[in-house]
Amino acid sequence: MPATVVRHQDNLTTRRLIAERTPGHSLPAPFYTSDEIFDLDLDAIFGRHWIFVASEAEIREPGDYVTVEFGKTSLLVIRDDDENVQVLHNVCRHRGARILTPGSGSVGNLVCGYHQWTYKPDGTLIWAASAADDFDTSCHNLRKVAFRSIAGLIYVNLSDEPNDDIDEVASIVEPYFEQHQLKRAKVAKQIDLIELGNWKLTMENNRECYHCDMHPELGCTYFITWGYPEDAIPPHLQETHERYLSAEAELERKCVERNLAFKGIEELDTRTMGFRVQREALDGEGESYSMTGAKLVNKLLGDFDDAKLGRLSMHTQPNFWCHFMADHAITFAVLPIAPGRTLVRTTWLVHEDAVEGVDYNVDDLTYVWRETNAQDAAFVELAQIGVTDPAYIPGPYVPSEYQVDAFCNWYIDKLNTHLDAEAAE
Amino acid sequence: MPATVVRHQDNLTTRRLIAERTPGHSLPAPFYTSDEIFDLDLDAIFGRHWIFVASEAEIREPGDYVTVEFGKTSLLVIRDDDENVQVLHNVCRHRGARILTPGSGSVGNLVCGYHQWTYKPDGTLIWAASAADDFDTSCHNLRKVAFRSIAGLIYVNLSDEPNDDIDEVASIVEPYFEQHQLKRAKVAKQIDLIELGNWKLTMENNRECYHCDMHPELGCTYFITWGYPEDAIPPHLQETHERYLSAEAELERKCVERNLAFKGIEELDTRTMGFRVQREALDGEGESYSMTGAKLVNKLLGDFDDAKLGRLSMHTQPNFWCHFMADHAITFAVLPIAPGRTLVRTTWLVHEDAVEGVDYNVDDLTYVWRETNAQDAAFVELAQIGVTDPAYIPGPYVPSEYQVDAFCNWYIDKLNTHLDAEAAE
Amino acid sequence: MPATVVRHQDNLTTRRLIAERTPGHSLPAPFYTSDEIFDLDLDAIFGRHWIFVASEAEIREPGDYVTVEFGKTSLLVIRDDDENVQVLHNVCRHRGARILTPGSGSVGNLVCGYHQWTYKPDGTLIWAASAADDFDTSCHNLRKVAFRSIAGLIYVNLSDEPNDDIDEVASIVEPYFEQHQLKRAKVAKQIDLIELGNWKLTMENNRECYHCDMHPELGCTYFITWGYPEDAIPPHLQETHERYLSAEAELERKCVERNLAFKGIEELDTRTMGFRVQREALDGEGESYSMTGAKLVNKLLGDFDDAKLGRLSMHTQPNFWCHFMADHAITFAVLPIAPGRTLVRTTWLVHEDAVEGVDYNVDDLTYVWRETNAQDAAFVELAQIGVTDPAYIPGPYVPSEYQVDAFCNWYIDKLNTHLDAEAAE
Repeated sequence: MPATVVRHQDNLTTRRLIAERTPGHSLPAPFYTSDEIFDLDLDAIFGRHWIFVASEAEIREPGDYVTVEFGKTSLLVIRDDDENVQVLHNVCRHRGARILTPGSGSVGNLVCGYHQWTYKPDGTLIWAASAADDFDTSCHNLRKVAFRSIAGLIYVNLSDEPNDDIDEVASIVEPYFEQHQLKRAKVAKQIDLIELGNWKLTMENNRECYHCDMHPELGCTYFITWGYPEDAIPPHLQETHERYLSAEAELERKCVERNLAFKGIEELDTRTMGFRVQREALDGEGESYSMTGAKLVNKLLGDFDDAKLGRLSMHTQPNFWCHFMADHAITFAVLPIAPGRTLVRTTWLVHEDAVEGVDYNVDDLTYVWRETNAQDAAFVELAQIGVTDPAYIPGPYVPSEYQVDAFCNWYIDKLNTHLDAEAAE
Repeated sequence: MPATVVRHQDNLTTRRLIAERTPGHSLPAPFYTSDEIFDLDLDAIFGRHWIFVASEAEIREPGDYVTVEFGKTSLLVIRDDDENVQVLHNVCRHRGARILTPGSGSVGNLVCGYHQWTYKPDGTLIWAASAADDFDTSCHNLRKVAFRSIAGLIYVNLSDEPNDDIDEVASIVEPYFEQHQLKRAKVAKQIDLIELGNWKLTMENNRECYHCDMHPELGCTYFITWGYPEDAIPPHLQETHERYLSAEAELERKCVERNLAFKGIEELDTRTMGFRVQREALDGEGESYSMTGAKLVNKLLGDFDDAKLGRLSMHTQPNFWCHFMADHAITFAVLPIAPGRTLVRTTWLVHEDAVEGVDYNVDDLTYVWRETNAQDAAFVELAQIGVTDPAYIPGPYVPSEYQVDAFCNWYIDKLNTHLDAEAAE
Repeated sequence: MPATVVRHQDNLTTRRLIAERTPGHSLPAPFYTSDEIFDLDLDAIFGRHWIFVASEAEIREPGDYVTVEFGKTSLLVIRDDDENVQVLHNVCRHRGARILTPGSGSVGNLVCGYHQWTYKPDGTLIWAASAADDFDTSCHNLRKVAFRSIAGLIYVNLSDEPNDDIDEVASIVEPYFEQHQLKRAKVAKQIDLIELGNWKLTMENNRECYHCDMHPELGCTYFITWGYPEDAIPPHLQETHERYLSAEAELERKCVERNLAFKGIEELDTRTMGFRVQREALDGEGESYSMTGAKLVNKLLGDFDDAKLGRLSMHTQPNFWCHFMADHAITFAVLPIAPGRTLVRTTWLVHEDAVEGVDYNVDDLTYVWRETNAQDAAFVELAQIGVTDPAYIPGPYVPSEYQVDAFCNWYIDKLNTHLDAEAAE
């Protein structure tokens, strides 16, 4: 049947599913399992909103690139000869061959492996052998993608008319990141992990610490009272909470002294580019994600002279979170592959002058989050299998999961906006 | 399009396929290959009829459990603290995580691995940390599934209004099983085998011995004239048939003497819960499924003092058959995974006091049916590949395959009943 | 919904896609990626046109067979007891089991492994044990498929009313193959390679040498100026072109002298059974596909006494090409498995009296095309991944890719013809 009819009917089904959603509860199963909803997510969410793809520290020199895959899309994030960032579709304009295979590296020009059509790192076609006389190379440059860097964090927007909420969000959050000087950082390690669950389960899992008793390594430094309302701290975490309050007081003093932004701002479901940013204290030594809380990199980021600055954490809807400490930073990109498969790309960043084996050790640097990610992947898989069971009924979030609920609210709202726009066409 | 419209159109397609079926012939291809029919099977057959899942011998003590998976469903068959059987959906009522991973074992309580919501073995929610003040635990118990034990064989029914034909079937067949005393048995071995074919091909394969020349190990004891009409015994099996008649006469004498039910009752396609039950003689020593027919377990089931009691075999539509000898019993559960994938779970049961390595040896005990199952799996795979070929035309069953036809009749009749009920809604 | 309605709606979608195709450009993505179009290809193209399946040299003796699989179809190409070729559906007429597993070999009769129904190599059912009294074996022979041998190359047509364009094509091309005497050849080696791309990408890749700089081994003998218009030879191939012209002149003299057909005939998109045939010179020693161009088999095909006869190459739409040299021949069959999976079966044929290890060495014989096929498989995979990307836009073929365009024209025309015929039903 005509595509418009199909779309209309699919949209009716989605509207009904949306209507079935009970606020404060997990989503109806098809949002996690259906192929149609997954395609809709790629269109309405990953095709219209600002998606984190990489940080500038991943492409420091001209020709440096990293590819980013989600759905069937492959993007090429590359630094061009003028040292500008470019984001290009990784598809040759001749017969569509993939130009660079997934990964990162450095190139002079972008040469398609099939018939050697050659593009500059900014996407300009400069060579197509034996083309017809009337062939216009300028019509066959690689397709560009809109992007914006927030303090060195690169976001893309696949829409023809990207929303501009990112400008205001950038102006709010950039001050928090300033002193970490991400542009002077480099990649210490990047790990791609495939979680056997829907991308939304990955995001939901990250928005609550209700499960954090199951993260022993993370719990050495991360106050696992995170997300609990003041009056709902469980008894076994009361002592932790006391330490948290005292550590927070110390951190606040330091931040004021050093002009470091720290105040929590939470607009997870109240704007187009939902986000949350806050600098918070760490437990133990309070410096970094180690087993004791002591720093993991001797050379600190930017020009910091104090390692004990807690963690600056930011979350942006729909696919990003990060932690910036004084000694290193970690970014997380959530990239949907299929309804039940999601890539989580974790990148550890250190000062450009930090020397591996001298200033830091990669195994130690990555230990806590490697363990934590593996534990989270297991939770996401359990959840995916369970919500696929016909017996699954959406269940209630507890108060400390209010940010999960906010994520779902944001998501449902953006679907509605998208469907309204389609209906108005 | 609206789900009801889709369902109506799918139903029209199914009705047409049903109309295409020629009695006495194998089913049209989509019944074996289509995703839509597979979903319908899970709904109309596995969602409405009595499905064998386990025997009570598999869960002897409080906390003992075994999971059973078919389609996307996972059931938890468990013995509760009051020593009662419970069948629960294996899905947490919080955010839907799978509670126990597939397998068997023993637990104190059922603790979800994600956020530690804790349920008693009877499904009662007893702990949800930091829930809201108005949270009502009693509304969040694990969902229960209707079940009924026939002589220790546990059947479940996923329907909200389970049909009650199982009561009458139970009253008919229980006398056959009484003296085997399944409740005093234990598991000697359980093997899960995945057959690369539709579940109906697995069932059809089991309802005829026309292929039994290809089961050399089974043929040592099983009279492979089984299913042949008296006047259609093939010449090469005439001698076997003579031995069968003589063995049957001896078995009948014994059964009468010992008050053991033995008479064949066959209602495969003439009632809601189609079944067949009969005690029949075995060849060779006549005691058990060994290569000579000699018993494989020294300690006999129940209080038997004679090993030569043939095999008590029962078949229930849609997913079960079994063989109970004097020395051990074997149950077979057929569990659909996908249109072309089926799990066959075979369980060997012995007297609870039989000692492994002394009274029996697991390799010997399981040998004949491990070989037979592997041969059958190969046949089912050949059939699945062939019926998927566009050149496949349903072919005629021969007279000794009349029970295969009865299985198909039962299946088609139950689909019709289901579609009629849906149409009446 | 009724199948006819579904078909009508699918056809509308296909018509729209066809309308979107720009001549001179690669096809819109769904032609390479969609399940529906793949099914249509199997129906409209592989179900109606003449498909190459094997050469007679693969089945020299009664009982010799080779199976050929595409889509869900398995065909049995077999030599019967009267030494005639037969092509049969590889599906038992009883309950549909696959009769022979994929591969080649030799049989006395065709015995189904499930219930031993037995057929002669010509498909006649000769044994069905214990069938009913009124069972008519003559109604249950294996289903036959129309076929035609062109100079020993066996083509099948699955349609009930095969088009007869093959007769005229045969009369045109058979003279070219006569002296190679394929019926006196035997298989030296057959290799099945799975390419991770749509079958049309495999065919397209074969219809141009624009990518041949990436085939170093092939380029030792194959003039990689092939396909370039005279006025568009790239500068770096000018020297090659000079050698080509001189080699062609020599070959033409020889062909005239020996009454060998050599003139190029190209009707790729101008008739029902599109084809191209031509004898062309080889580079280097000019004899065969070796690294120097020297012959690879001492015993030449047929009664040739001169090894330097270049290559006789033929292409037939939709799934075949071949190269016949004086010393050996190579056939290529392209067999679709799934939208993104294609089997390429390459068969090396030598004189029946050539002795392995004496007259030829299999590793050397197959080296150039094993390397070339592997390189092509990589290109096809790159193309498949790229056209699956939502950012893919069909791109322009360059002049030397005009035969790729002709393939697409033929394909689109045949789809239109098929849809017209369906609409007229």
